[in-house]
Amino acid sequence: MIPDILNQGQYDTVYNFLSLVIASQLFTALFLLISLPRILPRYRHAITVAIIVCGIAAYHYFRIFDSFKAAFVSAEAGGTGDYVQAVGVSFNEGYRYVDWLLTVPLLLVELIAVLALTRKLQTSLLVKLVPAAALMIILGYPGEISVDNGVRGLYGLLSTIPFLYILFVLFTELSKSLVNQPVSVRRTLSQLRWLLLLSWGVYPIAYLLPLLNVEGADAWVGKQVGYSIADIVAKCIYALIIFKVARLKSFDDDPSFAAIELSKHELNTKA
Amino acid sequence: MIPDILNQGQYDTVYNFLSLVIASQLFTALFLLISLPRILPRYRHAITVAIIVCGIAAYHYFRIFDSFKAAFVSAEAGGTGDYVQAVGVSFNEGYRYVDWLLTVPLLLVELIAVLALTRKLQTSLLVKLVPAAALMIILGYPGEISVDNGVRGLYGLLSTIPFLYILFVLFTELSKSLVNQPVSVRRTLSQLRWLLLLSWGVYPIAYLLPLLNVEGADAWVGKQVGYSIADIVAKCIYALIIFKVARLKSFDDDPSFAAIELSKHELNTKA
Repeated sequence: MIPDILNQGQYDTVYNFLSLVIASQLFTALFLLISLPRILPRYRHAITVAIIVCGIAAYHYFRIFDSFKAAFVSAEAGGTGDYVQAVGVSFNEGYRYVDWLLTVPLLLVELIAVLALTRKLQTSLLVKLVPAAALMIILGYPGEISVDNGVRGLYGLLSTIPFLYILFVLFTELSKSLVNQPVSVRRTLSQLRWLLLLSWGVYPIAYLLPLLNVEGADAWVGKQVGYSIADIVAKCIYALIIFKVARLKSFDDDPSFAAIELSKHELNTKA
Repeated sequence: MIPDILNQGQYDTVYNFLSLVIASQLFTALFLLISLPRILPRYRHAITVAIIVCGIAAYHYFRIFDSFKAAFVSAEAGGTGDYVQAVGVSFNEGYRYVDWLLTVPLLLVELIAVLALTRKLQTSLLVKLVPAAALMIILGYPGEISVDNGVRGLYGLLSTIPFLYILFVLFTELSKSLVNQPVSVRRTLSQLRWLLLLSWGVYPIAYLLPLLNVEGADAWVGKQVGYSIADIVAKCIYALIIFKVARLKSFDDDPSFAAIELSKHELNTKA
């Protein structure tokens, strides 16, 4: 439930975190765009998808930010008093789901693309992971917009099924393909799955807060902060690690590219 | 007919779908723009047209979104009540027709361009398809803005004639040219025509809803959702499939380009 009143500290906390996410997504996208020539062409598709994911997230956070600013107003001079819900405008939590519907499947595409597996294995993983990711988001939405805790619990449970399936595929089938990756990136790729598990795990916790009777303005502010941090880790940090993998694989594939991209000192200590 | 009242759920549904279309069109265009070097120059014209189509659609959806937000207002705090039509502003369905008048002929140009047929055959197909597509949209418009079901039915019928002609050309004359396409893309191109048929088929169904006495707020919301999904499939998904065709044809045309663009694993299993 969206709280009726936010105090100055609560309002500023949400405001600043939403702005932090915009800056993180926008400039991760810009960094990756400028850095595309720093990896071999064969890995640029993965990084292009990462740019698009961060771009889509930035777009939606601009909308969430505007929606938040319009939804809460203060009647005090200097805006120092409490913020109450504005007339005729509601804070639209739905933007998050529109964002996730597009970005969560793409995060898995990004991971599969950087692995550069055989075409058959790529297709086999994508037809499992992408629909499961979309289903996970779609099933969460009816619970999110419901004020009935029973409905929230039911759809939360349904949404958990594709989530567990995704984890199962990542930790079994994908693990088998790690042996075909260069030694230099195996550990990073293995860690990436844990980052994905931990950051994606924040969403169901935030989702379940109302069921745990954590209500009121503080809980709602906590949920916004939790979603914001999770979105930065799951998209920006994740994309930067994928970029690191793409760069190490580029050096591994083509020593002459590494010689151009790295200094003598770096080259000698690459391994 | 535009409904007098939307409840919160109906309002949010339209709102979120319009925003979903903006994000889809905008970031499909950006993805293709960044990915232009991932295909041979000879296919970049087709993808450039695809970028323009998605860009034009994004522009019009920004307008539709603003028009919708201005046309419906709530008088309740937190915007939790019903939304009623604002005084002095009406939702402008006409934007969709301006969009389609530009984008629908270009979607066919996009398809013909990626096939890279002989110049004679290209011209012959374009002079048939492009005017038919424009005519189809122009004839639909008087019916869309009419409140008279007779007028709507008449123009719907007239608009169906060029639509059937386009399908006839795609499924007869174009089919003959498929044998000259590389084996790797024949199935994708054949599927593309069905995607076009199915996504374009949504528009006449939404158009006919008032004739079928499906009226009221739910029907109107359904129509907006239907147009939104159809616009995503017919432009974004369609463009991404055209991009896939362009990429496969690039690899087929030039094995040295494929060697740069694909990893060892991908290259060994290209077929």
